Amino acid sequence: MKKQTLVAIAALTAAAGAMAQSSVTLFGVVDASVARVSAGSVDVTGLSSGGLSSSRLGFRGVEDLGGGLAAGFWLEGGLAVDNGTGGGFKFDRRSTVSVSSKSFGELRLGRDKSPAYLNVETFDPFGDIGVGGINGANLVGSASSAAGTAEGSAPKRYSNSVGYILPKMGDFSGQVAYSFGEKTSAIANDSMGSGIALRGSYTAGPLNVALGWGKSRGGTDAVGVDYKSTNFGASYNFGVVKPMALFATEKGGNKRVDLFGFGVTIPLGAGELRASYAMFKDKNASNADSKKLALGYGYNLSKRTQVYGTIARMTNDDGAKRGLAMSSSSLASPSVANGANVTGYEFGVRHSF
Amino acid sequence: MKKQTLVAIAALTAAAGAMAQSSVTLFGVVDASVARVSAGSVDVTGLSSGGLSSSRLGFRGVEDLGGGLAAGFWLEGGLAVDNGTGGGFKFDRRSTVSVSSKSFGELRLGRDKSPAYLNVETFDPFGDIGVGGINGANLVGSASSAAGTAEGSAPKRYSNSVGYILPKMGDFSGQVAYSFGEKTSAIANDSMGSGIALRGSYTAGPLNVALGWGKSRGGTDAVGVDYKSTNFGASYNFGVVKPMALFATEKGGNKRVDLFGFGVTIPLGAGELRASYAMFKDKNASNADSKKLALGYGYNLSKRTQVYGTIARMTNDDGAKRGLAMSSSSLASPSVANGANVTGYEFGVRHSF
Amino acid sequence: MKKQTLVAIAALTAAAGAMAQSSVTLFGVVDASVARVSAGSVDVTGLSSGGLSSSRLGFRGVEDLGGGLAAGFWLEGGLAVDNGTGGGFKFDRRSTVSVSSKSFGELRLGRDKSPAYLNVETFDPFGDIGVGGINGANLVGSASSAAGTAEGSAPKRYSNSVGYILPKMGDFSGQVAYSFGEKTSAIANDSMGSGIALRGSYTAGPLNVALGWGKSRGGTDAVGVDYKSTNFGASYNFGVVKPMALFATEKGGNKRVDLFGFGVTIPLGAGELRASYAMFKDKNASNADSKKLALGYGYNLSKRTQVYGTIARMTNDDGAKRGLAMSSSSLASPSVANGANVTGYEFGVRHSF
Repeated sequence: MKKQTLVAIAALTAAAGAMAQSSVTLFGVVDASVARVSAGSVDVTGLSSGGLSSSRLGFRGVEDLGGGLAAGFWLEGGLAVDNGTGGGFKFDRRSTVSVSSKSFGELRLGRDKSPAYLNVETFDPFGDIGVGGINGANLVGSASSAAGTAEGSAPKRYSNSVGYILPKMGDFSGQVAYSFGEKTSAIANDSMGSGIALRGSYTAGPLNVALGWGKSRGGTDAVGVDYKSTNFGASYNFGVVKPMALFATEKGGNKRVDLFGFGVTIPLGAGELRASYAMFKDKNASNADSKKLALGYGYNLSKRTQVYGTIARMTNDDGAKRGLAMSSSSLASPSVANGANVTGYEFGVRHSF
Repeated sequence: MKKQTLVAIAALTAAAGAMAQSSVTLFGVVDASVARVSAGSVDVTGLSSGGLSSSRLGFRGVEDLGGGLAAGFWLEGGLAVDNGTGGGFKFDRRSTVSVSSKSFGELRLGRDKSPAYLNVETFDPFGDIGVGGINGANLVGSASSAAGTAEGSAPKRYSNSVGYILPKMGDFSGQVAYSFGEKTSAIANDSMGSGIALRGSYTAGPLNVALGWGKSRGGTDAVGVDYKSTNFGASYNFGVVKPMALFATEKGGNKRVDLFGFGVTIPLGAGELRASYAMFKDKNASNADSKKLALGYGYNLSKRTQVYGTIARMTNDDGAKRGLAMSSSSLASPSVANGANVTGYEFGVRHSF
Repeated sequence: MKKQTLVAIAALTAAAGAMAQSSVTLFGVVDASVARVSAGSVDVTGLSSGGLSSSRLGFRGVEDLGGGLAAGFWLEGGLAVDNGTGGGFKFDRRSTVSVSSKSFGELRLGRDKSPAYLNVETFDPFGDIGVGGINGANLVGSASSAAGTAEGSAPKRYSNSVGYILPKMGDFSGQVAYSFGEKTSAIANDSMGSGIALRGSYTAGPLNVALGWGKSRGGTDAVGVDYKSTNFGASYNFGVVKPMALFATEKGGNKRVDLFGFGVTIPLGAGELRASYAMFKDKNASNADSKKLALGYGYNLSKRTQVYGTIARMTNDDGAKRGLAMSSSSLASPSVANGANVTGYEFGVRHSF
């Protein structure tokens, strides 16, 4: 997707030769869809803020410091297109400042995605968004601190983090991040809420494989409980079809849930077919597994604009109540009873700038 | 008012011929005034965030998709210039994504003004803002869900809406919007909070006439009560003077209030004189009518900057307590006792970009 | 620091000659540091959002109206880089609209810094930010309405203000601002929360001296208590060293605290050494004084990017419990017991655009 760049007066007025290239970029995604989810006999219909990509607005820039060194910032916040950002616009998706070098890599301070979460959205055709997104079901964790959602046992994003991204080494990439718990030493467990995560990936031509791992000391949960997440994903782009697979497991507090996901994207006309199948295995409770099937098609009106439709179904065991997610600040999926199956669909338009 | 456009790198780097014209625009209004309102023997003075136009900041863009088709977005939020946006900046004025065509019109998803509200602000010289604004008095509805204000019996804006704007057909324009209530089918009345609204207008040379209609299923009020609003406005620009008239009625829950408004704008020097007279008729209570008179002058320092002053008076029957509005997050009009008359004035500066 | 300017379409499409120069500028600072503060035996470590400058994002513009007259706006809000702006982004640092003239000065409406606060940050090498900042200790006022912090007995910023800045008169500058309390006349003391402040400065070559004075009618404190602050600062730039001194006193409600500050900045290589020493004298309590020492170095990677480190120590008398500040929405300094000494350090990177 093409980005709009604010023309830098730095560039316009730069003294000849003395000043390096710099830019500040305004960017965003505005995505809205009409969505419907049925859980058992109860359904709800409304407008979702993003069935394909999270709606967002951001500013980012990079300054060439010379000698291969660069400084940069990234401020990106989520938009609720459906109701105009209920709780106030925030740069909650990413707020970072960084110094980077081609030789030494990048040091990044602020709020950013956890390296341990990237695979979960990378190796699913629907990413982590919309009724088809892998994010609709919790792995380990209570409802209020769902794994794979915000700030729980396996947080999607790290606040108060220091991250280090390795320089590009052939086909291999790697990164690590630490998130401060910011508790005083007067508290019994002053590492509460802290987290550490790693990711390594290997990308050679059409092949992409990656491993992620993270540990969080239960921030919103009991003091002293460590939650661990491990995930592995792979995709291979044959051109006419791109299959992908994801394995993810999260454990902590005597619970463990495994996720096996299989997906495929197929270029079709000016668009793309998407399909995914996922199995959620609760390793500590019997009869508490779920299966999810999602199908979708997106048609590109341009490189920046896509109209799309998605349909998904979650089949729950008698002891499971996993649902489907809708990305909206006001549209909530109906609550799911144990063993109820859930169906959802949405169609919408995504515009990037 | 001139808009500033962020120069699109899309345009700067576009491959020859292949790429259509696109732009992202930053725009806004910063308006502040010193305002004073007296209700009976009590008065208050302070800084209002916009006596002439609501202060705002926004980003919007359009992408030419070729073949007469276009995609666009609009993100616009209100500013509280007086105290720096108390509750956090939000794109609460408009958050939409749309696909449009010269032949088929525009499909618009998100949060937008209700078509049923547009006449109320179009056919008043002071619009819906400041001590002179038509918005200072409720029609039907409780204090907390005032008609003609936010999200009440006749909401100013629709969240979760799907709108359709007809293509231009000669001198006629038309649009319709539906706002999802987003209640689950488990709730007795799952259309609660939903709304539908229409508007048609005819504009030929100096003449502008428009009809609006809307129905809301009481969102913040009792379940199952439908509120209906109907309004009709006309203006004719003679050049030396532009008279306008507005009739609006709202009813629901055994209440009905009618509004008759008459206004005029007169170009004078580098500015404009404004005057309006309005009568509020409570059709279900006797001795509960009000009359409002507002006078103002705005002097244009440029096309983008105006200094202005407004004075207004609301005369209440013994059983009425309609007030005057100030557009501020911290400056509240004093409460009005039954039968008390209210006087307000403000002078300020509005700058657009 | 170089600013990025959004290219104005006004300039691009201006009719020949008719239109004056205008611009809208996007600007900001993204500053993050790893910070640690120890108070007695308790310490806390985490990520601070700005150890050198407050992180911020803003839009500002000026329109040349011709004849020496100009209109302008300034919208600037604080960023919490550490966690993505917890409570929502706001234009809380400055939200103003103004009309100015070279002959008559500037009239400014909205939210802005109090003239009585400017010296406190101007004549300290660390300004009012970070563990080294002068802002870490309260002068007069309760903990919740700390002098020199937000909206207390000597507010840093005025909401609802009308300010007037004198035109440049030789080496002398002056300004005054009034902040409306916005209480109705039905309240016993309707000037509650209001404030008035003045500042005059004289700048001739390397010399800079300034006097500030302000009075606030206790907004968050008892009705009818006036708080007064007076401060005086001076600096002289010898080139190889720039010494500075600050005297500030605040009184009200039978309390008075004096501050004597001495600082120095020394250019060193591509950076700057900073040192400050401050004494806080409680004039109404015995054995309640404190001393603060701060040392720092900042290295400029470019004009826009600096890496820095600061170390500071507050030494409290037995009856004092002044602390050190960290600029973070989630990282709070440990509470300080009476007589405990406090040590803090941080190192970070600041990037401006």
